[in-house]
Amino acid sequence: MLRHIVKAQQFDKPWIEGFFGQVREMEDVAASGGSDALRRRIMATLFYQPSTRTRLSFEAAMCRLGGTVISTENAKEFSSAAKGESLEDTIRVVAGYADVIVLRHYELGSSERAAALDAAPIINAGDGPGQHPTQALLDLYTIEREIGRLEGLKVAMVGDLKYGRTVRSLAYLLAKFAGTKLFFVAPPICQIGEDIKAHLAEKDVPFAETGSLEDVLGEADVIYQTRIQKEAFSVEDLHGTDERSFQAFIITPELVSKMRQEAVIMHPLPRVKEISTAVDVDRRAAYFRQAKNGLYVRMALLMRILGQEKAS
Amino acid sequence: MLRHIVKAQQFDKPWIEGFFGQVREMEDVAASGGSDALRRRIMATLFYQPSTRTRLSFEAAMCRLGGTVISTENAKEFSSAAKGESLEDTIRVVAGYADVIVLRHYELGSSERAAALDAAPIINAGDGPGQHPTQALLDLYTIEREIGRLEGLKVAMVGDLKYGRTVRSLAYLLAKFAGTKLFFVAPPICQIGEDIKAHLAEKDVPFAETGSLEDVLGEADVIYQTRIQKEAFSVEDLHGTDERSFQAFIITPELVSKMRQEAVIMHPLPRVKEISTAVDVDRRAAYFRQAKNGLYVRMALLMRILGQEKAS
Amino acid sequence: MLRHIVKAQQFDKPWIEGFFGQVREMEDVAASGGSDALRRRIMATLFYQPSTRTRLSFEAAMCRLGGTVISTENAKEFSSAAKGESLEDTIRVVAGYADVIVLRHYELGSSERAAALDAAPIINAGDGPGQHPTQALLDLYTIEREIGRLEGLKVAMVGDLKYGRTVRSLAYLLAKFAGTKLFFVAPPICQIGEDIKAHLAEKDVPFAETGSLEDVLGEADVIYQTRIQKEAFSVEDLHGTDERSFQAFIITPELVSKMRQEAVIMHPLPRVKEISTAVDVDRRAAYFRQAKNGLYVRMALLMRILGQEKAS
Repeated sequence: MLRHIVKAQQFDKPWIEGFFGQVREMEDVAASGGSDALRRRIMATLFYQPSTRTRLSFEAAMCRLGGTVISTENAKEFSSAAKGESLEDTIRVVAGYADVIVLRHYELGSSERAAALDAAPIINAGDGPGQHPTQALLDLYTIEREIGRLEGLKVAMVGDLKYGRTVRSLAYLLAKFAGTKLFFVAPPICQIGEDIKAHLAEKDVPFAETGSLEDVLGEADVIYQTRIQKEAFSVEDLHGTDERSFQAFIITPELVSKMRQEAVIMHPLPRVKEISTAVDVDRRAAYFRQAKNGLYVRMALLMRILGQEKAS
Repeated sequence: MLRHIVKAQQFDKPWIEGFFGQVREMEDVAASGGSDALRRRIMATLFYQPSTRTRLSFEAAMCRLGGTVISTENAKEFSSAAKGESLEDTIRVVAGYADVIVLRHYELGSSERAAALDAAPIINAGDGPGQHPTQALLDLYTIEREIGRLEGLKVAMVGDLKYGRTVRSLAYLLAKFAGTKLFFVAPPICQIGEDIKAHLAEKDVPFAETGSLEDVLGEADVIYQTRIQKEAFSVEDLHGTDERSFQAFIITPELVSKMRQEAVIMHPLPRVKEISTAVDVDRRAAYFRQAKNGLYVRMALLMRILGQEKAS
Repeated sequence: MLRHIVKAQQFDKPWIEGFFGQVREMEDVAASGGSDALRRRIMATLFYQPSTRTRLSFEAAMCRLGGTVISTENAKEFSSAAKGESLEDTIRVVAGYADVIVLRHYELGSSERAAALDAAPIINAGDGPGQHPTQALLDLYTIEREIGRLEGLKVAMVGDLKYGRTVRSLAYLLAKFAGTKLFFVAPPICQIGEDIKAHLAEKDVPFAETGSLEDVLGEADVIYQTRIQKEAFSVEDLHGTDERSFQAFIITPELVSKMRQEAVIMHPLPRVKEISTAVDVDRRAAYFRQAKNGLYVRMALLMRILGQEKAS
């Protein structure tokens, strides 16, 4: 039985494979209108930063399974400057009200601290620059669901690889599967960190870095696009990096025409300009299906954590 | 089957008459403690502007029918300046979580754009200066419920007729019914727009404009009062318009004594000073019953949209 | 049948004793996973000030009993400067949507005004500097639950006794029980008000004031600690009151070692520094159990107000 979900690294390959079978069942449960498996269970969403997309996805997952939700996007108010309550105290109090706590917090390691109390099951819904493990699981699930396998995949990660936590977690998970090859496609100032490269080298996972999206289009099974948050970079970093150098990373219908027919384009959303909306109608555009998979993955996680094996 | 609710003009007279029968049933359903007709259905309230009254009314409607709600009053955060997600993308994502989306947005036409995607049923809960069709339906339902008919009615609309979207929609709906006569009672700077007058002329609906509430009190079946939002007018517009000229439009017990016994006073609320609280005890004061009718109208709309004919 | 919960003084000793039996039953209901006793009932939480802890506690209580919740932490928006709706109008509207209204408002007497309308049952969840009766009930319940009786108790109240509304209400309730003795432990600028002392004198309840926590540790059955909100005091009040004089009121393991074995430490939370976290592991630290009792007390109150005698 699963107790806490804190980081992507806590899941090994056998667990992931078994879990994805349960996620697939959740697709059927949702399609047939939901279940009462989690009736009378209470999930608290405790968000110290608003993240409406993530919060609504968790809440919909709980509702689809017949559970109920208590919710705050103002969790900071618990520990406002004037009051100064510790995260630990807040978790202990909310654990008295709810059967599971979904925590979003701006501090690295906050979910590990909350889980260490073991007052209630904790699901990390993002801890600042740290982890967002349910996003990593839904990304991996989407790849399997779209491509049909998790072994022998060529995955190109594009955009902000330096600060984007989703690509870092996904690279880590993909390294567990045989035959993975990774392409890191980014301007030099956004390239993937040395720690990830060292991890891949240790696991004998081949990878390549490139500044050209066109180089990998014909080969990749998955193009995982992300948003480059220019505001994350210093003026010095950006010196000499003109707008054109970012525009080369925008996915357009012209670039999509060079992709393999069975390949897919993913994106953690929100998307701004880095994928042209003209691409949306292409069946290789998987990003909205990916968002919906978040619902199924979170349903399955809630089932596991609340000790339900079967939805019916 | 109803798919989207975007504007008051989409409903014709036969539809309205059939629908109001279902609204009446919802009164019985609510009085008997609710129904499970929408069990396991999820409604998302996606509010880019807070409107607590409207939001709670929709949420209560869904709860009374056994459904569940996921909710945000921070929908702007989805598309914050830094992130810049389009409304279309947000709707596509939320459509993956919910069976129906109630949308409140500050931009004219936003609900039509959302409905055009057809990703999920959309209910327009106000699109800036545009439409608020569920308010228009509850206003019309209240008139029928209070007076007992929709034909041959004399309705006086009072206050801010220039910017008030509720009176504009209601005028449009009333024009569908035989024998309607409308009085527009307002200071010159707040009078009804030429477009509405042209529409009424085309439909052969008699109407009169006046600056005197007393002129119409003895004749009207319905006094529909609205709040004059002085901040909506420019200083030049207000030039020469003294406080007294607004005070003449306040409904007091003295004015109510000149109304017909079977007439009613309506108001979309919130009410500030434009109806004296001393009027509340008069049985002709229908505005709180009108607010409650919003619950029944929204219950019936949710039933229609989610394909349920019978509540039990 | 209970209609409104406005102030701690409305409950007499026989009512409290009967009620606490029902609270005890709610512990069993919650432990067995909840009940459907309040199925289809709607509770509105109408918070003009955010108080996430109190709100989530009420919402969890309603959910545990199978009811549903509509909620706002933005109730001020109902009556924003521009709109100016009265509390009375807001209550009348929300009473049309919900079966019970939990009201938190910044104005003294707001709950009494709302209850006077009798449009829906009102539960006061804090009215500014006034009352917070459900907190007072959960405090008293915790004492009975922890110590095993409500008569013959020696209770030390520590910290901000001048502005802390919880200690004032609790003192009032304890005065109803035979053999109560109260210690008021605070720096001179935070001592208990003359009105409470006059009330205790009238009821022949012995009490003592002291500036030394150590004086009472060996005798008290209950140490009720509160947070001293230094910002509540003027600079003149604080003149001559150095940091050390506040530190003497911090409960440390060393001080706890001087307490009676059967005694307990309570705190309304949030706790900042006034109880050392090293005390948390001591079984006499009852404050997190106290917070959880808030759930049971609110469940029992909702059962009473909504006319349910039995949870199963």
